[in-house]
Amino acid sequence: MTVRPRTTADTHAEPAPLHLADLHASLTDPALGSMNFLNEIAQRFPDAISFAPGRPYEGFFETTLVHEYLDRYERHLREELALDEEAVRRTFYQYGRTKGIVHELIARHLAVDEDIVADPEALVVTVGCQEAMFLVLRALCADPRDVLLAVSPTYVGITGAARLVDMPVLEVRAGPNGIDCDHLEEVVRGARARGLRPRACYLIPDFSNPSGVSIDVPTRHALLNLAERLDLLLLEDNPYGYFTADGEPLPTLKSLDTRGRVVYLGSFAKTGLPGARVGYVLADQRVTAADGTTGLLADELSKLKSMLTVNTSPIAQAVIAGKLLTHDCALREANAREIALYRDNLGRLLAGLAHHFPQDGGSGVTWNVPHGGFFAVVTVPFPADDALLEVSAREYGVLWTPMRHFGTGPGSEYRLRLSFSLVTGERIDEGLRRLAALVRSRTATA
Amino acid sequence: MTVRPRTTADTHAEPAPLHLADLHASLTDPALGSMNFLNEIAQRFPDAISFAPGRPYEGFFETTLVHEYLDRYERHLREELALDEEAVRRTFYQYGRTKGIVHELIARHLAVDEDIVADPEALVVTVGCQEAMFLVLRALCADPRDVLLAVSPTYVGITGAARLVDMPVLEVRAGPNGIDCDHLEEVVRGARARGLRPRACYLIPDFSNPSGVSIDVPTRHALLNLAERLDLLLLEDNPYGYFTADGEPLPTLKSLDTRGRVVYLGSFAKTGLPGARVGYVLADQRVTAADGTTGLLADELSKLKSMLTVNTSPIAQAVIAGKLLTHDCALREANAREIALYRDNLGRLLAGLAHHFPQDGGSGVTWNVPHGGFFAVVTVPFPADDALLEVSAREYGVLWTPMRHFGTGPGSEYRLRLSFSLVTGERIDEGLRRLAALVRSRTATA
Repeated sequence: MTVRPRTTADTHAEPAPLHLADLHASLTDPALGSMNFLNEIAQRFPDAISFAPGRPYEGFFETTLVHEYLDRYERHLREELALDEEAVRRTFYQYGRTKGIVHELIARHLAVDEDIVADPEALVVTVGCQEAMFLVLRALCADPRDVLLAVSPTYVGITGAARLVDMPVLEVRAGPNGIDCDHLEEVVRGARARGLRPRACYLIPDFSNPSGVSIDVPTRHALLNLAERLDLLLLEDNPYGYFTADGEPLPTLKSLDTRGRVVYLGSFAKTGLPGARVGYVLADQRVTAADGTTGLLADELSKLKSMLTVNTSPIAQAVIAGKLLTHDCALREANAREIALYRDNLGRLLAGLAHHFPQDGGSGVTWNVPHGGFFAVVTVPFPADDALLEVSAREYGVLWTPMRHFGTGPGSEYRLRLSFSLVTGERIDEGLRRLAALVRSRTATA
Repeated sequence: MTVRPRTTADTHAEPAPLHLADLHASLTDPALGSMNFLNEIAQRFPDAISFAPGRPYEGFFETTLVHEYLDRYERHLREELALDEEAVRRTFYQYGRTKGIVHELIARHLAVDEDIVADPEALVVTVGCQEAMFLVLRALCADPRDVLLAVSPTYVGITGAARLVDMPVLEVRAGPNGIDCDHLEEVVRGARARGLRPRACYLIPDFSNPSGVSIDVPTRHALLNLAERLDLLLLEDNPYGYFTADGEPLPTLKSLDTRGRVVYLGSFAKTGLPGARVGYVLADQRVTAADGTTGLLADELSKLKSMLTVNTSPIAQAVIAGKLLTHDCALREANAREIALYRDNLGRLLAGLAHHFPQDGGSGVTWNVPHGGFFAVVTVPFPADDALLEVSAREYGVLWTPMRHFGTGPGSEYRLRLSFSLVTGERIDEGLRRLAALVRSRTATA
């Protein structure tokens, strides 16, 4: 018989053999550092009013909903899909299909809410949209020549995912319409002239993170034509599209895409339930093998997923499926309260900015006017950097995000992102009062 | 106002621009193909008796347990951690801590069940153990010189994860004790002589997948000493350790590790609930930055995770936490029924093999005798390859796994893996009768 020894040794007692310089380069990259810095400062100042995180409003949630959604999906399995007891239990309990189990419901939701006709087999259900981004970049980055394009300023999650596969990201200017198509063409042709292979362009056409800007409809059409002409994929990420504050929703690129140019990255973090960590990718492009056989890009992504997370938790998928079923797969309608709340928040934010920084008042502060989403961008006449954020948090009790974390475009050091998804009502007013005090202190000393 | 056009175009109408040869090399690698082939054949022959999948037995599960576990964790937050309503809701609903939220409970479980003293801050809760493997390999593979070692035959999940980061895997012989330490040293020194950097050796010391073999205690000590001498990390994966059929459990490498040599990869797929897709990694090694500051390897893994899956679903974590709390974090006790069932299955399998292939009967069939776990390996006097598996499934109605999928060691083409976790009682007997018929047909024609 073997006696199990009780270990009392402290495994930290001896120095470790690892040096950061010997670990993957992404670990010393600013993109990964950004996320950590921003989380850390939020944790250090928990009582500050925060315009920083792009998190959805949580006030409408109750934990009982998780149980209701699980029950609803279980009923769906039993009654609508006619699974027997054993099959129902297995669905919740066991390892499941790599591409996911709620693909039919997601396809229905895309038809209802987005006018996207999706083959359910072309969907891969992922651990949030972040895994979807990683899978697509891992598939597309085959070679040191492969590069990604991204509209700048850019969501830090795509930059980070690119770092994990050592894929360089070339910045494309946003311009006044959300993407500067001429610049996109110039970057692609320039990259090709240098022997690089631009594989795709990542963008958030609706209420972009971090800029809040949307791409207008003529530019969407122009972009699809350009992608075809340049033989380029477009990676369309759409976490905020439902949160329109004024005007009608614009058609997604994917709904306009007749030539298989768009890979659609979907998230339920803002429209479903962030705690489920369920997203998806619609990748209906056909991939041709050396022997001439073809398959769906989704199936290639699924192979990668089997070695990354095996499958997305069926319990987590069941929660999202239950919410979809509860609302007949119409998430736009299901989010009516949230849409109204974010609209009110945006209105209050813009009114507050106008109040504190009248355009003839000489403050030098300007801002953009998004038509929805979670974010607006303010330009100030002094650097809005990490050092100022620290001062803002400690001395003024207000948090925001330096735009420098999202790209290095001209003027970015004078811009800051305000998120209006989590802070509401008088907290917005008070947050802006604090921001105005910070601005006054800086312009007075400047 | 913008009118949203209804899209009727079929996005498959035009050929896609993608060629498999332009996608990441892993997609044409046998390691990723294996998983697909094995899944596909299982789907094509759903009525076959299957000794193929390494899935846990599902007969003790009820979907009501998911609700009970969620409730138990919610009560824990309210009563034991004294969170207010808002904080409880936020825990389930919102994005959460990248390293996870159930780390304290996992640390308690490791103390109770494994005699491992774990700093909760050194734990990263992952989307199954597979994500943990990927994170560790991504961190360690910084350079084309970096290689992984793995005891052969090897779990296909680690090979696949290594492919995703383009990290070569060098095979180390198992030998009679589960790992041939002399060969390990030889491979490490040989690799270094060729300018390579062996970063770690992956192994499953208890009831390995696919071989079922365990590493004896003297070899565990020898291995730890060798790892120290060679300046090598050991990646200890332990999904099956609790399922002892005879004898006492052996101490994990991590519980014997006083010098920070072992990164411990944990899974709740077999002991908790596979559908939660929750695993973890204990990475308490210290990492030194260029400026001399040090941090935990877990924190570096967390940075990578923030760009891969952001965080593991708190709802999925809550399910596992609820099971842990229900059983006072003692999963070995919680799995008493499962342990007994797998023990009975193994006994029945070994008795059946002895019955069908008496050792003086001239069948040429031999097998190993594992002391627990999910797997045994049978050697046959003819190639047990994918073509034979197809025949076995179609003509004999029995599924198993060709060992060739787990490595190319000498003799592997004559071996097959039998899993006894999912098939029970008379189905084992009948499965073996079918396997015996297949063997007779082959030896008759050979």
